[in-house]
Amino acid sequence: MRELELIDALEHVLAPGGPRVVRWLGDDAAVVRGRGYAVTSVDSMVNGVHFRLGQLSPEEIGHRALAGALSDLAAMGAHPGEAYMTLGLPTGTRLSDAVSVARGAQALASRFDVAIAGGDVTAAPALTVAFTVVGWASDPGELVGREGAQAGDLVAVTGTLGGAGAGLALLDARVPADSVSEPVARALRERYAHPEPRFADGLRLSALGARAMIDLSDGLATDARHLAVRSGVSIELSLQRLPLADGLGEIAEQLGVDAGVFAATAGEDYELCACLPESARLGSADESNRGGAGQDEAPGLTWIGRVVEGPSGLAFTDAADGLAGYEHSL
Amino acid sequence: MRELELIDALEHVLAPGGPRVVRWLGDDAAVVRGRGYAVTSVDSMVNGVHFRLGQLSPEEIGHRALAGALSDLAAMGAHPGEAYMTLGLPTGTRLSDAVSVARGAQALASRFDVAIAGGDVTAAPALTVAFTVVGWASDPGELVGREGAQAGDLVAVTGTLGGAGAGLALLDARVPADSVSEPVARALRERYAHPEPRFADGLRLSALGARAMIDLSDGLATDARHLAVRSGVSIELSLQRLPLADGLGEIAEQLGVDAGVFAATAGEDYELCACLPESARLGSADESNRGGAGQDEAPGLTWIGRVVEGPSGLAFTDAADGLAGYEHSL
Repeated sequence: MRELELIDALEHVLAPGGPRVVRWLGDDAAVVRGRGYAVTSVDSMVNGVHFRLGQLSPEEIGHRALAGALSDLAAMGAHPGEAYMTLGLPTGTRLSDAVSVARGAQALASRFDVAIAGGDVTAAPALTVAFTVVGWASDPGELVGREGAQAGDLVAVTGTLGGAGAGLALLDARVPADSVSEPVARALRERYAHPEPRFADGLRLSALGARAMIDLSDGLATDARHLAVRSGVSIELSLQRLPLADGLGEIAEQLGVDAGVFAATAGEDYELCACLPESARLGSADESNRGGAGQDEAPGLTWIGRVVEGPSGLAFTDAADGLAGYEHSL
Repeated sequence: MRELELIDALEHVLAPGGPRVVRWLGDDAAVVRGRGYAVTSVDSMVNGVHFRLGQLSPEEIGHRALAGALSDLAAMGAHPGEAYMTLGLPTGTRLSDAVSVARGAQALASRFDVAIAGGDVTAAPALTVAFTVVGWASDPGELVGREGAQAGDLVAVTGTLGGAGAGLALLDARVPADSVSEPVARALRERYAHPEPRFADGLRLSALGARAMIDLSDGLATDARHLAVRSGVSIELSLQRLPLADGLGEIAEQLGVDAGVFAATAGEDYELCACLPESARLGSADESNRGGAGQDEAPGLTWIGRVVEGPSGLAFTDAADGLAGYEHSL
């Protein structure tokens, strides 16, 4: 495949962004009209590390890579803006597959009014899909970092946990395909293949007064610890309160692990975890009962623990084993 | 190596940016105060594709990856702002080597007041260093794209050409080490290992009225064709007018190629090529004679050809062989 032929094909798949985008693909750099403060994150997914070709279609790989990056913006309570795509392509990659990766990303981008405004194509030993995503905020005070949790805060998560990990366990054939019903298996695979950046939830949690927030890419046990360490507080969570994805009980049983432990460690759910003042619980009750969170149709919040005084760290108050020592390594 | 240990070490090497940077490493995303229009480019360098470990130190790899990305901003006539670094690290990468890559990039960033404001670390099959760089412009009209060249314009390049390619030929031992004197060999290797983003030249060329501009990463034969195609014009260049790096004659002779052809095709010089109205030549004459271009100490401009009416494309008017058909493929 020739580089110029690929770039030409990509220019046809990627939709030029709205009036904000002054210069787009085809120049040395893209030019975008800024709005206040730029909120920027970079995220890469590598075949054999973050996904496996054969388990996901090229479109799903493109969706998943962009969703993982956008999820970081959602976790700041930012509005999405632009994305920049880097494709690392091994020798022999088919033009149609590379274009399909871009098509999958563009479909997600269009739903959130994100312009894929530029990118880079390079040779690489493994298929790599990397996104730089930029959101905008008029006031940095609206954005939620990781460092503001205070003793007395309650901890909430959006959606359900463990679904993506269970979907991957099915794809990996680590559990029998008939562990769950066909529709449940399909839904679990979807959680893995098509994660959803929780923009509506991020904005809602920011509006509810969230003092610290993170997206759950590595799993609650790792990610909530980041909140605790950056905030200098102790976070106590309950495994039994975690909102489990449908079918998780059966999958965890087949794997021989506690469903709560699986939900807290499997990762890749891209839900949000936030620490909020206790008063926010009342403010959210109505919405939670209605079970809707706007455009991305996430279920309501689930309250899973609290922030307490004490040495920085995370504890599961009802964990029988050494979950407290769990740490993600490269 | 543990990911958190590496991230901790990187936080000590990377200098927090000035007052523009509101949130830095350690959150889901960086937050930076914008200024008008964001000018954004992404660029990746992969071991075995864009460099070879063993030929360059980790610091040089970091410098080169950031310089290649910043060069795209220079080619727009933009002021540099922030950079976001992604490290893809193979199993067994030493913590000290990963930190040295960051140190090399930070040294370059500091010289141009660029804040490395965020990043990502991931496992990868080959060492990969990718940068997203963001510059800012208050008026997009000050920025120079690739599409504005007009018949009658003159074509200029900054600095000298072929030096990086000659340095690589020496590193690859494709030519005897004694083809040139020791100091010349050292200077050629430097051109390859420490490319310099030509920000001062980019701003000067923009001020001189440049209508189209590009940086020379793939080589003049490829990159000037991009200007011709995007502008819908024909560009005629002279191989004999190309400003050759010191020692290029000897290296090209050893390789059995014409020095001008080598300078036009070897790539990686990261000089700028611009199309300007003829009147700009007078405006630049004085500066050119003084031989200085400000902060990056590039020599003056060299006028190497002109833009003419005709089908989009590039021709070397004095090329004996099929250089006109030269095309870069992935």
